[in-house]
Amino acid sequence: MIFSKDSKATSWVEGANGSDFPIQNLPYGVFSCGGSKPKVGAAIGAHVVDLAALHDAGLFSDTPVSKSNVFACDALNDFMAMGLDAWRSVRRRLVSLLLEDDAPDSCDDIVSADKALRDDAGLRSRAFVSIAGVTMHMPTRVGNFVDFYSSKEHATNIGSMFRDPSNPLLPNWVHIPIGYNGRSSSVIVSGTDIVRPCGQTKADDADAPTFGPCRALDIELEMGFFTGQANDLGTPIPASKAPDHIFGMGLVNDWSARDIQRWEYVPLGPFLGKSFATSVSPWVVPLDALGPFRVAQPVQEPDVLPYLRVDGDWGLDIDLKVDLKSAKMDESMTISRTNFKYMYWTIVQQLVHQTCNGTNVAPGDLYGSGTVSGPTPDSYGSMMELCWKGTKPIKLPTGEERKFLADGDTVTLSGVCTAPNFKVGFGELSGTILPAREYP
Amino acid sequence: MIFSKDSKATSWVEGANGSDFPIQNLPYGVFSCGGSKPKVGAAIGAHVVDLAALHDAGLFSDTPVSKSNVFACDALNDFMAMGLDAWRSVRRRLVSLLLEDDAPDSCDDIVSADKALRDDAGLRSRAFVSIAGVTMHMPTRVGNFVDFYSSKEHATNIGSMFRDPSNPLLPNWVHIPIGYNGRSSSVIVSGTDIVRPCGQTKADDADAPTFGPCRALDIELEMGFFTGQANDLGTPIPASKAPDHIFGMGLVNDWSARDIQRWEYVPLGPFLGKSFATSVSPWVVPLDALGPFRVAQPVQEPDVLPYLRVDGDWGLDIDLKVDLKSAKMDESMTISRTNFKYMYWTIVQQLVHQTCNGTNVAPGDLYGSGTVSGPTPDSYGSMMELCWKGTKPIKLPTGEERKFLADGDTVTLSGVCTAPNFKVGFGELSGTILPAREYP
Repeated sequence: MIFSKDSKATSWVEGANGSDFPIQNLPYGVFSCGGSKPKVGAAIGAHVVDLAALHDAGLFSDTPVSKSNVFACDALNDFMAMGLDAWRSVRRRLVSLLLEDDAPDSCDDIVSADKALRDDAGLRSRAFVSIAGVTMHMPTRVGNFVDFYSSKEHATNIGSMFRDPSNPLLPNWVHIPIGYNGRSSSVIVSGTDIVRPCGQTKADDADAPTFGPCRALDIELEMGFFTGQANDLGTPIPASKAPDHIFGMGLVNDWSARDIQRWEYVPLGPFLGKSFATSVSPWVVPLDALGPFRVAQPVQEPDVLPYLRVDGDWGLDIDLKVDLKSAKMDESMTISRTNFKYMYWTIVQQLVHQTCNGTNVAPGDLYGSGTVSGPTPDSYGSMMELCWKGTKPIKLPTGEERKFLADGDTVTLSGVCTAPNFKVGFGELSGTILPAREYP
Repeated sequence: MIFSKDSKATSWVEGANGSDFPIQNLPYGVFSCGGSKPKVGAAIGAHVVDLAALHDAGLFSDTPVSKSNVFACDALNDFMAMGLDAWRSVRRRLVSLLLEDDAPDSCDDIVSADKALRDDAGLRSRAFVSIAGVTMHMPTRVGNFVDFYSSKEHATNIGSMFRDPSNPLLPNWVHIPIGYNGRSSSVIVSGTDIVRPCGQTKADDADAPTFGPCRALDIELEMGFFTGQANDLGTPIPASKAPDHIFGMGLVNDWSARDIQRWEYVPLGPFLGKSFATSVSPWVVPLDALGPFRVAQPVQEPDVLPYLRVDGDWGLDIDLKVDLKSAKMDESMTISRTNFKYMYWTIVQQLVHQTCNGTNVAPGDLYGSGTVSGPTPDSYGSMMELCWKGTKPIKLPTGEERKFLADGDTVTLSGVCTAPNFKVGFGELSGTILPAREYP
């Protein structure tokens, strides 16, 4: 179910139309309420639709998920493993159940409204839960987490600050979607507090390193995609098939301890500077819901090698925002606005590259985009860039200043795609910094 | 159950005494035979003891695993999660069941022989399986794989070859057990073939990279440890507790595509040059079985920071060997002999460092040591070092030469600890190189 960008389709669910979660979105997540076991839901307006309940009511009987209730699970992995046909059947069914009238607008697939949910008060009361009353959990069990470095602006900024402003990009960067394996155990859901990490750091003028709390705690505004169907070890996923392996996307904050990272990362890359926490938003927006927002990616020059050539446009027009709130502030302040369409390497190229050596992917794996930085100084995706290595501190309305994060700060990322008659939102991803704990 | 180094204890199981798997070892693994479901066994001599069958027979009724048959599983994770007391109780019980006579030698714990298995022919026929007839599986579900770089000789060799022979170690190396996150999905068990990976490479004198099969496929002789009990995110595992979180060790071959690695690895570290495959041996030797072989590690100078100071000796005297057999050879040839005791950073320091920022560990996680290279040229743990960047090819008895691995080559790693009256072996870890597949 890919709606057109000029879709006017509406839902009968109160508050859905015009919200971040209209019928054109229907993101998936894992929720619990009142101590119940976590299960899979879809968001519409300010509500969660309990998909396990819809399944129990037989509303997916004509889809590939009919045999087993993959929604009565604490993770999306089983559903993701079923593949594109299953995802599309379920999405089509959900659209039909939530549609106001027979699809009044062009899309790739005519869907008739089905009143089985709308007209069944008992089922509605079982299946709808207020988003305000639920606890959201990790959307998937992340078996493998890869993080890329795919914004040319970000890589250029880092190269300019720390290497050579006249020649900031390394030679491999324009040929390879550079990335590395991250830590999957510490991928956590929005709302989980971040304990300031301890680690080794060394000042430039010191003879030896010291151990203690990080003094340069930063964010990285990223987006991430989750994979669906696995491939066999030794069998790459080529460009023609890669989009079918991508289930959907969410927001990612790749918390970074810059001082730890700086001392440790040569020659094997970031390790403890990143591994203490990576946050993801609870709602996974299906790739098909992003269809109306596909735009041309930046021109890739020099031309990429043939295995990285992908048909169609895979830039994604997603407005992104970073808000910061210190413990003293009453409301948060926006410190960056950018857009995912600036990313040089696309999500499809990332997956193609990462599997070109035969690496196997599992359902629910997470791929971070790398910091999303735009072309202007107010569109950078990290505090290191926004404050340009501490030379331009962020001034908060309380009179406080920030070069990096302080204890008590809350960072909230959000993202939204905007069409003439609807939005597709990603919701929010937030985390609050707790003071370092005494080393045991 | 930690035997003393001069233990003379023997088992009534035929062929156990003097083998790699005597009563002093009792490594754990996951096996299946004749199409049965995989379950957990322990090796003794040329036999697998089916621990699920012993559990069903009530032989673990007086241990912490009595309530649930954690051996009727396709991975050791559940048993590993139970922690040190459970591991020690099970090991003590196994020793008592397999012991020839009441423990005739000094150890930390007097164990009486228990004849419940020995004298029950029916149970024996159910519980003993010939090692030659079983299929071995991955010992754990590896949720997270970390690989270190802890041999000073190896790091010095690499620095000398590729950086600066007069100053080969980077400044951070003597302060930090340098490591990185590896790919866990492609950790595979011994016997799994290795498909030669494709990838981007660039010759030094070329203007642009090309895509194709790796031409510098290498091994890395490593050992690895598996973690047991988890810690909470945000709560480091300090030096005093780290040994209790280590379940046991096995052999690791960290297959490496040097040409791919070389072009990609700056600045974020190795990625596709490593992620296509990492092999592990099927038998996990309990840490207590290595107790008699703990020796002083190399002197660490400059002194390490306090959080990395660990009581006791954590060097491990394990003889290691690399054998190579080309498709034309009738039998394999040993190309390296080294010892794990040369490692500068210990396994305990590795775990302490990796969690010092609060990273959470899960049962069954794998930690590779990094290439084990000794002080002499015949004790290096990679072909890149053995052949010194291709300048000293290995001559095979067939007249063939090797700078890196050729299709059809089989590499076998093995390891053994030797005491006056017994050995503790790790068995073998082997893999054969298959030709690259045509890119799809």
